[in-house]
Amino acid sequence: MDLEKLIGQIHVKQSFLCIGLDTDLEKVPPHLLQEEDPIFAFNKAIIDATHHLCVAYKPNTAFYEAYGLKGWKALGKTIDYLNANYPEVFTIADAKRGDIGNTSTRYAKAFFEEFGFDSITIAPYMGRDSVEPFLAFENKHTILLALTSNEGAYDFQTQKVDGTALYEKVLQTSLTYKNAHNLMYVVGATKASFLGDIRKIVPDSFLLVPGVGAQGGSLKEVCHYGMNQHIGLLINSSRGIIYASKNKDFAAMAALKAKELQQQMQEELKLLGR
Amino acid sequence: MDLEKLIGQIHVKQSFLCIGLDTDLEKVPPHLLQEEDPIFAFNKAIIDATHHLCVAYKPNTAFYEAYGLKGWKALGKTIDYLNANYPEVFTIADAKRGDIGNTSTRYAKAFFEEFGFDSITIAPYMGRDSVEPFLAFENKHTILLALTSNEGAYDFQTQKVDGTALYEKVLQTSLTYKNAHNLMYVVGATKASFLGDIRKIVPDSFLLVPGVGAQGGSLKEVCHYGMNQHIGLLINSSRGIIYASKNKDFAAMAALKAKELQQQMQEELKLLGR
Repeated sequence: MDLEKLIGQIHVKQSFLCIGLDTDLEKVPPHLLQEEDPIFAFNKAIIDATHHLCVAYKPNTAFYEAYGLKGWKALGKTIDYLNANYPEVFTIADAKRGDIGNTSTRYAKAFFEEFGFDSITIAPYMGRDSVEPFLAFENKHTILLALTSNEGAYDFQTQKVDGTALYEKVLQTSLTYKNAHNLMYVVGATKASFLGDIRKIVPDSFLLVPGVGAQGGSLKEVCHYGMNQHIGLLINSSRGIIYASKNKDFAAMAALKAKELQQQMQEELKLLGR
Repeated sequence: MDLEKLIGQIHVKQSFLCIGLDTDLEKVPPHLLQEEDPIFAFNKAIIDATHHLCVAYKPNTAFYEAYGLKGWKALGKTIDYLNANYPEVFTIADAKRGDIGNTSTRYAKAFFEEFGFDSITIAPYMGRDSVEPFLAFENKHTILLALTSNEGAYDFQTQKVDGTALYEKVLQTSLTYKNAHNLMYVVGATKASFLGDIRKIVPDSFLLVPGVGAQGGSLKEVCHYGMNQHIGLLINSSRGIIYASKNKDFAAMAALKAKELQQQMQEELKLLGR
């Protein structure tokens, strides 16, 4: 998907919400466990109920891999269902991959071509030749981990390298990669105050922001520090939306939670005059 | 697998060779493409022909994911085959995963429990709470990327953080993680001269060393700088062994290549008096 289409959707829907499909069979409504493919049944219901309120879905691959073959199959069915029924929605494989060149090409093919995702999250530790194979795909997007929402981010990401935090070094260096225009970045909402400095380095890039809600990040702060002239934000919520209820009304309740966030986003767009 | 068993195998086989099962259908002998599951057929033949010459196998998950469901299935059959027929061999899922806590737990379950691998490679960028969920599994091993064999390693890994290279900071910090005794580290053979300094920080840990052969690293140098009193090395070769021939003799030729490396290793063990 090209970015103009994504930005267009944000304006149409007055939303820059990404819904994380971290589907866990211990948390889905028990009545779904009777279904032949409960993971897909859950995802489908959530998607059908929320697609008009969000602009992106982000399945975290770990949740699918944990169920082995049947999880991998459910992931395939989910992305196929999205591409067939809601092609206007941006799709993110939250896979946090990254390997040496020929291997990264394999991952890129797996997620961009075999599955048909619009984007994938990538860990930057292995540097240029681990990232560029993903960037080579036009109209596909590589979302590099910059500053993550967890406590462990302070172990290395915020450490100073020549006076610059490592995550800033990652941002700066990534801009020199071939096809850097296909980059986006993960920046955790729990560290919203860092967003001002991040915007100085990557003023135009989209930022995928997890950590609003369950992890404690503030939507208002993220918008204040992180929004750019093209909005430039995809704010993710997973558990807070998809597990809003364990009853038969789970999809409607998820839509209600998504609607709350969408309305807050609409408010921010109005306040910031976008 | 506990480490004593692995060390015992190294002595019995006079080998610390790990064979990388980076199975690519464009490179396997064409006659295998007639098989129902050519990926598994290739792996099985390679394993049957080489298991007495190596102490570990390392499938890189990217190669399997690239084939979607059938690749994932072949990976499952490969690890099942190894565990059923050669349980003395150490198995490594070269997956380079890493995510926030509850998600890392999912990955750990997927690879340690669902698949039954002995170990997994992990990217350190997200820090403590992304690594510790893997370390919580006793007799399972977490192989942290420290200094990788590719050019991109110089982007961040060798950058100085408070006067210390980032990869050294990763080694030092990881030693403070809970259950750090379950850690091993990836150190590329192309950077063998760094091994002396690395051994000062992690004298007792096993190092998984890719990059001998195709990528240009020297076995002799790696042994000189990297071997410790318990050997402490797993040296990986992938393409140089498994694609030794594209003919019907491919497994025998792979065994020949593996045997060459095993004999060099035996020589090193003798020279270094281990």
